[in-house]
Amino acid sequence: MRILGIDPGIAIVGFGFIDKQGHKLVPVQYGSIQTQAGTEDALRLKQVYEATVQLIEKYKPDAVAIEKLFFNRNVTTALTVGQARGVLMLAAVQQGLPIAEYTPLQVKQAIVGYGKAEKKQVQEMVKMFLHLSAVPKPDDVADALAVAICHAHSSGLQQKLNGAYKR
Amino acid sequence: MRILGIDPGIAIVGFGFIDKQGHKLVPVQYGSIQTQAGTEDALRLKQVYEATVQLIEKYKPDAVAIEKLFFNRNVTTALTVGQARGVLMLAAVQQGLPIAEYTPLQVKQAIVGYGKAEKKQVQEMVKMFLHLSAVPKPDDVADALAVAICHAHSSGLQQKLNGAYKR
Repeated sequence: MRILGIDPGIAIVGFGFIDKQGHKLVPVQYGSIQTQAGTEDALRLKQVYEATVQLIEKYKPDAVAIEKLFFNRNVTTALTVGQARGVLMLAAVQQGLPIAEYTPLQVKQAIVGYGKAEKKQVQEMVKMFLHLSAVPKPDDVADALAVAICHAHSSGLQQKLNGAYKR
Repeated sequence: MRILGIDPGIAIVGFGFIDKQGHKLVPVQYGSIQTQAGTEDALRLKQVYEATVQLIEKYKPDAVAIEKLFFNRNVTTALTVGQARGVLMLAAVQQGLPIAEYTPLQVKQAIVGYGKAEKKQVQEMVKMFLHLSAVPKPDDVADALAVAICHAHSSGLQQKLNGAYKR
């Protein structure tokens, strides 16, 4: 199963494709979509949307996992990140992909096993899980990979539970 | 000039197309896009996006005016409305349309001449400006027409100012 993890934003969208092969997680491609400050919001949204459609068409994920906003951020940030999330979710649903959403708390718990883990701890675990030589930069890329790994773990659990229910 | 006014949301998107003919404002078409509660967010966003693309293709506006969020709403609402705004703005920018944004305060000032006007006053003015026999329902539709009228007034002023500068 190939998972696309996304850390949404308007200036930087972090993305990470990983393959789940049994218990192994293999990084496929990761990076960021960046848009210029000073450009009109609508144009930046179009750039984010188009880049995401291209990435999905190229790397053909089976599922998308997207980070839910920090709820302690302010309302203006929520609106702006929401707009970016809207076009990111649209790009995924137009390709018929299931979309899972995880809060930063859920991501930390899935990756470090501790909801109040530091960002640095999460990043080190991402590096370890994916056998990377360094922590991916900027932070948004590591965050995107983290949410993808979180989904890989959660969906494995889900499959086990579904299997258990079916017996 | 034909203006599409939008009141963004995920459950109900109000829309209103009006023609500005000299000093006259003529309603062309107005109504709402509604999505079902309980449906996945991503699917609702797709429905809003597709319905908006269809409306734009059918009624071919020259400009889009969209309401800015009330900044005293909570962060979760801001995120959800933001997501809807994102796909609405995408639909407009993909057709090459200029997008203007107005706060409720600006809309009230443009329509009633008073930023703290009651919703009911705004609705009565919308009915009067467009020579309608009744206030359009639900409120989202009246709000969409109000933001379209606001843009009609503002862009008129803008043109006068531009004219003045050019002399």
